[in-house]
Amino acid sequence: MPKYPTRPVDGEIPRRIRNADYAVIARDTGAFIRSQVDGAQKDGVVLGLSGGIDSAVLAALVRDCLPDGALLMMLPDSRVSPDVDAIHARKLAESLGLEHKTIDIAPIVDGFAGVLEPDRTAMGNLRARIRAGILYYYAGMRNCLVLGSSDRSEFLTGYFTKYGDGAADIMPMTSMYKTQVRGLAEYLRIPRDIIEKRSSPGLWPGHDAEEEIGMPYEEVDSILYCMEEGLSADDTRKRLGIPAGRAERIFAMNKNSMHKRLQAPRTGA
Amino acid sequence: MPKYPTRPVDGEIPRRIRNADYAVIARDTGAFIRSQVDGAQKDGVVLGLSGGIDSAVLAALVRDCLPDGALLMMLPDSRVSPDVDAIHARKLAESLGLEHKTIDIAPIVDGFAGVLEPDRTAMGNLRARIRAGILYYYAGMRNCLVLGSSDRSEFLTGYFTKYGDGAADIMPMTSMYKTQVRGLAEYLRIPRDIIEKRSSPGLWPGHDAEEEIGMPYEEVDSILYCMEEGLSADDTRKRLGIPAGRAERIFAMNKNSMHKRLQAPRTGA
Repeated sequence: MPKYPTRPVDGEIPRRIRNADYAVIARDTGAFIRSQVDGAQKDGVVLGLSGGIDSAVLAALVRDCLPDGALLMMLPDSRVSPDVDAIHARKLAESLGLEHKTIDIAPIVDGFAGVLEPDRTAMGNLRARIRAGILYYYAGMRNCLVLGSSDRSEFLTGYFTKYGDGAADIMPMTSMYKTQVRGLAEYLRIPRDIIEKRSSPGLWPGHDAEEEIGMPYEEVDSILYCMEEGLSADDTRKRLGIPAGRAERIFAMNKNSMHKRLQAPRTGA
Repeated sequence: MPKYPTRPVDGEIPRRIRNADYAVIARDTGAFIRSQVDGAQKDGVVLGLSGGIDSAVLAALVRDCLPDGALLMMLPDSRVSPDVDAIHARKLAESLGLEHKTIDIAPIVDGFAGVLEPDRTAMGNLRARIRAGILYYYAGMRNCLVLGSSDRSEFLTGYFTKYGDGAADIMPMTSMYKTQVRGLAEYLRIPRDIIEKRSSPGLWPGHDAEEEIGMPYEEVDSILYCMEEGLSADDTRKRLGIPAGRAERIFAMNKNSMHKRLQAPRTGA
């Protein structure tokens, strides 16, 4: 059971977010992917398919814009990733008719765990970095770009692993808030069981995104929307009529994750 | 034996590069590291120590600016990395008096190799990404920054693995050309056997940097210097009196690696 109140945020802003033009988003995102692949003179793309909604939507977009040049990689840790995710991912890959491969990363995780001191959070992030290493392995062999599937909500809150799922050659989904990804998923006829599943980064068993962030994505997105409009955390709270502390939390996540969205500070720039 | 002619580049530009003020570089780089650690409210730094000159210099700088908060990680693949590098790295770590740890990544590489199709280049890059995963594991556990040790010559030519040795929270060495790192190493009294060893990224056995690039670093650096002054490849060749094709090669390496120095292109920026 989620620990946060699930009362939906009501009002003009969540409505405005939800009522995006999904046909236009799908078309523009496909054009972006296509032009980046062509511009970099690559032969296609590699992306991870987790069973979650972001990578499912990205895979469906790729099927439409690059039908012959995509490799979907399913990289569960069989002892951590829910079986249902693997089933959803495989079913989707088959229905899209794209090339796909499954590699259980459990033995690789074991190899690392054998030489590292145990730490749940560090190991969770390492899983994301192991996946990045494998995606880049195939992308290197096949002259492909690696696609990142972080959405705008994750990107702006830093809800991703630096150099893990954040490691990509292009990020086609960062224009869409999570609730818009859900809308786009309906537009693209992604199976309902993927759309309705609770979001999880899958870094450890039972990892639940909205529980960890402390509020539903509808609220996260409304707060981010106000933040991007230039409102203060306090004005955001008043505008949305949400309990104290929520807007501050999202504003702080955004600020503290700035380093994940910028190039590393360097000397002699 | 190197395959390129070793005739040193002569003239004003290589001299200007060589005659940098190493006391100032050491002081400014130390201040940069210190201020980044403090600004990010971190407790120290983690860096890889390969046995090569860049990480040796970085470790010596760290000893002077953060004597109590540094962890040096030696991460050889025992079947690929020359024994002499491990010996140099360990001796240096001990003489600097900094905390250090050695992890042979060979069994981890085996774990990946067991599930991936063989590919020498992709596996070489994967080794660099495995090392990044381990550095971030310790940095996460200890609330530390990961330091990157790419120098200016490597950075500007893209001679590093994207999200591998290129994965760092800060890059303190990107102000210094490789030949300046050599000068700084002498200033810092890094052991001669490290300074005089041939440069290698260590991605596979016998991997030699200057051989792979096709010219000595003195020439690479002089070409980059002219490029940064705004000269064309043709004018660079004339100015330095070097054979045709060399400047073009470095200019092309710079251009083709642009994507490694920028944030990944994204939608909705």
